[in-house]
Amino acid sequence: MELENALQQLEALQKRMYAYAYAESAIYLDNLTVAPKDTSEGRGVAVGILSGEEHKFFTAPEVGQMLDCLDEHKDELSPMVRRQAEDLRRQYERTKKVPADEFMQYAMLTNQASDVWHRAKEASDFEMFRPVLEKLVAFSRKFAGYYDSEKDPYDVLLDQYEPGLTKEYLDKFFGKVREKLVPVIHAVGQAEQIDNSFLQKEYPVETQRRFSDYLMEVMGLDRGHCTIGDTKYNDHDLASSMYSVIHESGHALYELGVADELQYTNLTHMAMSIHESQSRFFENLIGRSLPFVQAIFPKTQEFFPEQLKGVTAEQFYRAVNRAEPSLIRTEADELTYCLHIMVRYEIEKQLIGGTLQVKDVPAEWNRLYKEYLGVDVPDDKRGCLQDSHWSGGSFGYFPSYALGSAYGAQMLRNMEKEIDVWGPVAKGDLSKVTAWLREKVHRHGSYLKPAEIVKNACGEFDPEVFTDYLTEKYSKLYDL
Amino acid sequence: MELENALQQLEALQKRMYAYAYAESAIYLDNLTVAPKDTSEGRGVAVGILSGEEHKFFTAPEVGQMLDCLDEHKDELSPMVRRQAEDLRRQYERTKKVPADEFMQYAMLTNQASDVWHRAKEASDFEMFRPVLEKLVAFSRKFAGYYDSEKDPYDVLLDQYEPGLTKEYLDKFFGKVREKLVPVIHAVGQAEQIDNSFLQKEYPVETQRRFSDYLMEVMGLDRGHCTIGDTKYNDHDLASSMYSVIHESGHALYELGVADELQYTNLTHMAMSIHESQSRFFENLIGRSLPFVQAIFPKTQEFFPEQLKGVTAEQFYRAVNRAEPSLIRTEADELTYCLHIMVRYEIEKQLIGGTLQVKDVPAEWNRLYKEYLGVDVPDDKRGCLQDSHWSGGSFGYFPSYALGSAYGAQMLRNMEKEIDVWGPVAKGDLSKVTAWLREKVHRHGSYLKPAEIVKNACGEFDPEVFTDYLTEKYSKLYDL
Repeated sequence: MELENALQQLEALQKRMYAYAYAESAIYLDNLTVAPKDTSEGRGVAVGILSGEEHKFFTAPEVGQMLDCLDEHKDELSPMVRRQAEDLRRQYERTKKVPADEFMQYAMLTNQASDVWHRAKEASDFEMFRPVLEKLVAFSRKFAGYYDSEKDPYDVLLDQYEPGLTKEYLDKFFGKVREKLVPVIHAVGQAEQIDNSFLQKEYPVETQRRFSDYLMEVMGLDRGHCTIGDTKYNDHDLASSMYSVIHESGHALYELGVADELQYTNLTHMAMSIHESQSRFFENLIGRSLPFVQAIFPKTQEFFPEQLKGVTAEQFYRAVNRAEPSLIRTEADELTYCLHIMVRYEIEKQLIGGTLQVKDVPAEWNRLYKEYLGVDVPDDKRGCLQDSHWSGGSFGYFPSYALGSAYGAQMLRNMEKEIDVWGPVAKGDLSKVTAWLREKVHRHGSYLKPAEIVKNACGEFDPEVFTDYLTEKYSKLYDL
Repeated sequence: MELENALQQLEALQKRMYAYAYAESAIYLDNLTVAPKDTSEGRGVAVGILSGEEHKFFTAPEVGQMLDCLDEHKDELSPMVRRQAEDLRRQYERTKKVPADEFMQYAMLTNQASDVWHRAKEASDFEMFRPVLEKLVAFSRKFAGYYDSEKDPYDVLLDQYEPGLTKEYLDKFFGKVREKLVPVIHAVGQAEQIDNSFLQKEYPVETQRRFSDYLMEVMGLDRGHCTIGDTKYNDHDLASSMYSVIHESGHALYELGVADELQYTNLTHMAMSIHESQSRFFENLIGRSLPFVQAIFPKTQEFFPEQLKGVTAEQFYRAVNRAEPSLIRTEADELTYCLHIMVRYEIEKQLIGGTLQVKDVPAEWNRLYKEYLGVDVPDDKRGCLQDSHWSGGSFGYFPSYALGSAYGAQMLRNMEKEIDVWGPVAKGDLSKVTAWLREKVHRHGSYLKPAEIVKNACGEFDPEVFTDYLTEKYSKLYDL
């Protein structure tokens, strides 16, 4: 094959993959938001067929020939094209090991599983979900074996979300987190608790919607390219939607900040830990900082004058940072959040490793929540059925949240050395922060590998920067 | 090719087409509802590629071979499979005449056009839309030539929406409509106007949303398979959303009523005129009837006690049937509606026939509105930019609305001969009506051709049944 031809094929293939991903995400978004509950069968058939098509054209021999040709001409390629080819090669070698019919079955299964999980969660009945989860675990173990039968299957799955990530690395990371943070959590538990009762007053959903628009404006989001769904308002909890909006805006800024030249290529698929570093950066490091809260508090009070009457910015700051062991990950505070992730990590590791049976997940979940967080799990709904990830077949994703948090803390420390972070933030101006992240992280997409981006933005990764940050923040908050 | 093999391929091809249609409609729905305004470029690339893929596999030589094989074994096929093959053949012969790259360009153009049309409409500036509309007209004329260069191009396009439909047929139909209805409209204009001011009081959107849910319940829709978007509430117009909901519910009942055995086949693509016959049946013939209004009025008054204080069911009935020449098709009353369609029909016919230039559309539009409806069009927004259809490349669709209305009137007359329509409707029970339609229309999908369904449900089609129905209804309402 001639190089020119191969380059054309490379571009066409990536565009084609983009189109399928676009279709799948439109279907997924519909499913997540407005699709009626009994429509999963028809959707499953469609998704299964589209996945099968994608698998078929991506694993066609011509793709291998094209990649071979690009490999032969490696030195003539621009760095950008070389990375595209390298990345596709990795995915190609992996994907072609999975038989097309299994790939389709799996796509149909995850679609169905989402529906089953929703119902099981509603009924708080793990047994409803168990058979499907068993199939999902079996598929994941099997696929991991296809991808690389020599490696530990959980390592293989981790590598999907962040190339190079391993159990060994995570065991060390979580070991450090546990060692450093558990004593802080314990001390916080003994200290006088922060009052956050005003956050639980009645906050009308319609006003929260308008408040969300305001927050997206503060975040500097281009609304011409960014909308907001309407699924997660609690009319007696202001912080929940507020920090969800800031979190998701962090993801959106990342996606929108990818360099234009990467559009329609596979280098727009960023590692999940880096993605979470951006969302959690804005949610916690910025969003739950005193300068940020001081900046937006007057406006917040305008939205909710009755509910926040007599409350000061400082009190609001303390309330949104109240820490306490709890049951629900998405509502967890910044301090205890990583322990929620550790529970999931331990369970996934054992499920994929084959040392834990699916039927024993609820008991193990409840045991670990007691051990790590000291809480009793009253039912599966608030226990092992709370997250959607496993129903989507995502085993190995959860650690990204914890890693992302830790990466973020180190990015902030570096950022503080290079620019004035808090002056502008205290005025509600996030543009400097975003510009720094765009330069170091966003624009690169996955042209840089996760480890390179971490190096770029964090320097040498050191989990203690993260644990120190939290220790210091919570020592002040709780006067430890 | 062996028959068994061909049958398998037939099933697989139809499922594949189903999956692509599913993806395209998810993308379309997203675009129509929540997609941010500056995202059309990326969507266009995706839609273009998916359309190109679809075109490619559908026009592959193997499809022709399969169809040939099915044709050879025609007598061995079940009637259902024979119809599938026949329908695919028709589509195949047509599609393969369009070069793949033109097909993709066209798909990308219609995506872009939707965006341009939105902006042009907002700015009320036809010149913004003109260049795109010119391209769309040129494509449609070209495609019509590809499909059948011997036939009149507008006839070719009409045939897409309703096989067998022609200009000649429509000229006769609209001629009759005009002859019979224009005098009635004139007489209504001279008569004392009905008071509908209470429909323009303030109707909070939130309550209208709940009222919509109630209406869908009355319509007997299975909410497990049917949701409702949130785009068209006017807080000073109750009738607008109310009758939109009933109209769209009519479409939904049709889609949901198609026999299960037709699922995942091409026989679920129903002719547009039959589709509109169902939506307009419920909107007007049932929804704007006195028994129906009497049935739902007490509940309606519960939703809006202040706004409807002192109003009687009879007054409400008269108000939702107020007729007057107006500018906007979707807000037109039952009597004048067809004249709005006639304007569009005349313009399309000329555009596709090549006797009208795109640049002259606004002037011709305004002239025809004056001639048919006696109104002056103040701007393009309320004129030729009001509808989305042309931006989607749909030339030949509009007549379906008028034909559907006429078909519906005749269905009702036949239904009245066979079952007690108004007894149950007066009690808010639409199940008998729906069951009759399901039997005669819905379940057949496009297994029966449009003309067969019309025959089935209407008998010999006679436009005068429709014009008589309207004449009688409006003579009573306005005491003519």
